[in-house]
Amino acid sequence: MLVIMEESATRKEIKRVTELIKKMGGDVHHLTDDKTTSMTITGNSDGVEREFLAKMPGVKDIKDVKQPYKLGSRESKAKDTIVKVGKVEVGGKKLAIIAGSCAVETVEGTNEGGRLLKMLGANMLRGGAFKPRTSPYSFQGLGKRGLEILADARELIDIPVVSEAVDTDSFDLVEEYVDLIQIGARNMQNFSLLKRAGKSKRPILLKRGISATIREYLLAAEYIMSGGNANVILCERGIRTFNEYTRFTLDISSIPELKQQSHLPVMVDPSHASGRRDMIIPLSKAAIAAGADGIMVEVHPFPDKALSDGYQSITFDHFLALMDEIAKIAKAVGRSL
Amino acid sequence: MLVIMEESATRKEIKRVTELIKKMGGDVHHLTDDKTTSMTITGNSDGVEREFLAKMPGVKDIKDVKQPYKLGSRESKAKDTIVKVGKVEVGGKKLAIIAGSCAVETVEGTNEGGRLLKMLGANMLRGGAFKPRTSPYSFQGLGKRGLEILADARELIDIPVVSEAVDTDSFDLVEEYVDLIQIGARNMQNFSLLKRAGKSKRPILLKRGISATIREYLLAAEYIMSGGNANVILCERGIRTFNEYTRFTLDISSIPELKQQSHLPVMVDPSHASGRRDMIIPLSKAAIAAGADGIMVEVHPFPDKALSDGYQSITFDHFLALMDEIAKIAKAVGRSL
Amino acid sequence: MLVIMEESATRKEIKRVTELIKKMGGDVHHLTDDKTTSMTITGNSDGVEREFLAKMPGVKDIKDVKQPYKLGSRESKAKDTIVKVGKVEVGGKKLAIIAGSCAVETVEGTNEGGRLLKMLGANMLRGGAFKPRTSPYSFQGLGKRGLEILADARELIDIPVVSEAVDTDSFDLVEEYVDLIQIGARNMQNFSLLKRAGKSKRPILLKRGISATIREYLLAAEYIMSGGNANVILCERGIRTFNEYTRFTLDISSIPELKQQSHLPVMVDPSHASGRRDMIIPLSKAAIAAGADGIMVEVHPFPDKALSDGYQSITFDHFLALMDEIAKIAKAVGRSL
Amino acid sequence: MLVIMEESATRKEIKRVTELIKKMGGDVHHLTDDKTTSMTITGNSDGVEREFLAKMPGVKDIKDVKQPYKLGSRESKAKDTIVKVGKVEVGGKKLAIIAGSCAVETVEGTNEGGRLLKMLGANMLRGGAFKPRTSPYSFQGLGKRGLEILADARELIDIPVVSEAVDTDSFDLVEEYVDLIQIGARNMQNFSLLKRAGKSKRPILLKRGISATIREYLLAAEYIMSGGNANVILCERGIRTFNEYTRFTLDISSIPELKQQSHLPVMVDPSHASGRRDMIIPLSKAAIAAGADGIMVEVHPFPDKALSDGYQSITFDHFLALMDEIAKIAKAVGRSL
Repeated sequence: MLVIMEESATRKEIKRVTELIKKMGGDVHHLTDDKTTSMTITGNSDGVEREFLAKMPGVKDIKDVKQPYKLGSRESKAKDTIVKVGKVEVGGKKLAIIAGSCAVETVEGTNEGGRLLKMLGANMLRGGAFKPRTSPYSFQGLGKRGLEILADARELIDIPVVSEAVDTDSFDLVEEYVDLIQIGARNMQNFSLLKRAGKSKRPILLKRGISATIREYLLAAEYIMSGGNANVILCERGIRTFNEYTRFTLDISSIPELKQQSHLPVMVDPSHASGRRDMIIPLSKAAIAAGADGIMVEVHPFPDKALSDGYQSITFDHFLALMDEIAKIAKAVGRSL
Repeated sequence: MLVIMEESATRKEIKRVTELIKKMGGDVHHLTDDKTTSMTITGNSDGVEREFLAKMPGVKDIKDVKQPYKLGSRESKAKDTIVKVGKVEVGGKKLAIIAGSCAVETVEGTNEGGRLLKMLGANMLRGGAFKPRTSPYSFQGLGKRGLEILADARELIDIPVVSEAVDTDSFDLVEEYVDLIQIGARNMQNFSLLKRAGKSKRPILLKRGISATIREYLLAAEYIMSGGNANVILCERGIRTFNEYTRFTLDISSIPELKQQSHLPVMVDPSHASGRRDMIIPLSKAAIAAGADGIMVEVHPFPDKALSDGYQSITFDHFLALMDEIAKIAKAVGRSL
Repeated sequence: MLVIMEESATRKEIKRVTELIKKMGGDVHHLTDDKTTSMTITGNSDGVEREFLAKMPGVKDIKDVKQPYKLGSRESKAKDTIVKVGKVEVGGKKLAIIAGSCAVETVEGTNEGGRLLKMLGANMLRGGAFKPRTSPYSFQGLGKRGLEILADARELIDIPVVSEAVDTDSFDLVEEYVDLIQIGARNMQNFSLLKRAGKSKRPILLKRGISATIREYLLAAEYIMSGGNANVILCERGIRTFNEYTRFTLDISSIPELKQQSHLPVMVDPSHASGRRDMIIPLSKAAIAAGADGIMVEVHPFPDKALSDGYQSITFDHFLALMDEIAKIAKAVGRSL
Repeated sequence: MLVIMEESATRKEIKRVTELIKKMGGDVHHLTDDKTTSMTITGNSDGVEREFLAKMPGVKDIKDVKQPYKLGSRESKAKDTIVKVGKVEVGGKKLAIIAGSCAVETVEGTNEGGRLLKMLGANMLRGGAFKPRTSPYSFQGLGKRGLEILADARELIDIPVVSEAVDTDSFDLVEEYVDLIQIGARNMQNFSLLKRAGKSKRPILLKRGISATIREYLLAAEYIMSGGNANVILCERGIRTFNEYTRFTLDISSIPELKQQSHLPVMVDPSHASGRRDMIIPLSKAAIAAGADGIMVEVHPFPDKALSDGYQSITFDHFLALMDEIAKIAKAVGRSL
């Protein structure tokens, strides 16, 4: 159930309605646009008396939400959500460009790389400290040390930083150090981690699982939102299909579909989607043309020496070319870098 | 094996080399750019004496072609192929826009619709006369009468027309009436039909099978090319995956991959790929941004009354909006409508 | 619509009802069990007056058929269909075992191999004369000569023979020489070929397309049945998925599903499904345990020298072991070899 | 690297070799058959001097392990591993039959159901206390109370119990109460959970992820084994494909493949694989025929009233029929119930 308040509703009225719903047994989640506040009621709403609520001062309308993802759905909130990561706005006119190496490796690399990337157009710096690796014998990331390096780079370069939390323990640590916390594809249905993210004050970048349906994906986001954290950024990163020429298959249609189903921002990760550096530019262009709010790419000064995922990383030169190409598409669709 | 002739090679020299290869037991296929002629040798090339050939007047170089699709591969011909359909060039700077209803229905509908579509920016008119239908009890198309209607529309409107051949019998008929012969996804590995297409003088629009790998797709094109018909246009139309929100999953990465593997033009069919009219604009924009040479869309004045595939057809209004949107992306990638 | 006749209905009554339906505008297809005749009405049944029909002498009941595959559906015919191939019954208690090399190669090989296979338990001999090959440059089969070799083997060994028709032309030829005509996975939606098969007096082995849904598969069978040929044997041969360790993924669940949806016999081809000879025994056992009516396997005296698909062929020794293993499972499920 | 000890090797010799490898910088994992001990060296084995080791008393042979899953691979241990769950042996001649409701609901239901299931042939009782649910608004399980109910049932009925751990917190609790800890498909690459499982003394039932390759699956098992817990049972539960008629597609070929690649026991879960109760019997029969070491099925007295996954649960009657059918197949493949 969705309670839409009048534009003129006072904070007191909003508070009174909120408390009334709680008394009736429902959980209340506020979704605010520039001007209006809506409240989505989840949990046990059997006791919520709709007609009574409708007559409360400040209440404009009451609607049913048919989509199973109550909070993330367009039905609950027609206007696009803009998620703030430090000073960067994701979901607005300006595109979000997250760049950096797959794994944080050295202080110098991170600082110099980050500086260069910012200069070339990136507005967020990524780097993995905790790496979810298929094999227990692969490099697992620098852990806390990696986060420290990343946090130092943020101060030096003045750029928000992004890193992945792979479990509730690492979440606590990542939360302490970074501006945007990534939950990876393998953890998209790690519900404990999602619940933990729901309690965080930090925005969350939730990647789509490699075989997740759109419904499952938006319900995963709902776990975070229903926990109290409305700042979720979605990120398409390829699905598993019979195709062999790319590592995964970028599901470009998911961009308009997610935009239609949900008010959350949608980014695209062409590096993991394709696993091929020669695909980064065309796929990024396609993503922006299809309506994505930004891209996340792996950049490494010496891709072939990267400790993780080097074959899909691009060089700084290549990143510069990417920015040039994207800029033109961005302009064509009324966006900017 | 690929024999590359000098730019200065005379027709006589080319002829002499061609005949020599035939004598040695190989099949010769000519691939010509603006200036140079190359010859790909297929069939039994055991008897082809490379060193002897290399010394023939006019021969510049001899290379091995590693890709299994000898004639369609970039190795054989580095420059993009431009396929002419009537006066329209597919694969050049100008985008190819094929539009029309799924099935030819009436004379008036075809003529009026065609006129309007041309005015709005389409440069080819499509219409199915023979419809491959999943159920034997579904509408199977008007057959020859449909082709006559289409051919009349071409004369009236002065626009090349496109229609599908579903078997060798209908191929003969379609070949007689239309400018571009479509081979549909279900027939991508109908090798008899491909061989028949290889003997045609008409260009062929070969759609990708719904579960075809890139290798299988280019080998299907190779069936046509090795038969003697070099005028093949590729068309991505979605693959079958676990996704349920679209009818198929548009494999956007196939565009750069096909472009890299092959010199043939690549179009995209967002109507069949998605099965949803609300996806046509974003997917078309993505396709052009990713490097496609054109799109093929289903347009019907009254989609809900269409005899076939109405739910994925757009109206003329919608088509106008599509052209507007595509025009901007085309400009951004150095193409034009 | 399904008209079920009384057990006691006379031929005259059946004829009268048939003619009446035709007069009313419907197409009539007879489906006969041991004792009763049913008639499925397809085509335009708008004019068929149900209540009038129901009162005709000999008519027991009239039902609607909800499944889109009217003739192949269990609704139309509750009892399992048994298809006769020469003296072999497919779909009864005894399992059908089709064995032989992928392609017919030599007279001696076919004759000696066939004799041995029969002795070891095969009750049908397969051999490809027309091979649908992914590449135009691969061995395409011996054609008519292959069929002659196969037909000679049949006489010599007294065993029904099976071969594939790849188009309407080869269908005519194959029909002349063999007892069971195979339509391969790539041609499952080659509707012209299906229509041609519908006019044949020979039974048809219709393989499932590699990405066909059950609905599409049964509608493909319906093309054959609605043309007048009720003798269709289905054959699961693996679907395309993300799995890489087998060539395709054997969809074992399709066996009970096809049995539930349809009355047609269901076989399984573990050779093409897996592309690995070490999988033939476990997959065959699983297939029989799940209810399959038989298996089709590739056997070659020297798999590594086979002209086609050698890596998935088993030797005669291996075939003997397979028969031993299957015999035990067959007994466990109340079937026999 | 794999160090194989002589049958006659003394405990002292084994200890000495173990310590030597550790000194050289490697991690040692013991794998013991009835008679022989092998040691797989993981971690940094650069410093391990092979020739020196080979000369140590008690060492029979040293081999390289090519498979990336060192400990789970057949190369490391040729003989099938038998995992003990209470008094039940999984992987031996007798089949493992895990049955019970999806979620623990009531004391009476669990006790009475458990008693009946044991009587009918189940040798382990399952019940979910922590449920990983796609939607945050779905029933999430009884938690600790569910485990208590399950543990009481074990005492009353004398049957080992199985329940799922969904994160490291619930793992501690589940470990305390049950005999076999399940890690579900969604958590197959929850590496923190796998590492936690590696430190447990309890055996682990690791389900295959819905889009996991065999390599990824065995590497997930390797996370547990490399942590020190060799008691891992694998369980195929269906993969995601384009098929719509079942919830997932049972990948029957994975059974022989896992058996070939690894020495670990392999079970099959037909309930989750198909999501359809009418598929349980044929799929279970196929699984046992293909070589599975047991099955796990959902049974509920009133499936339609189950709090979770009722549509795929079978009744006790149905379970009895299942046991009858499986018994015959088991006998045919030299196994028993």
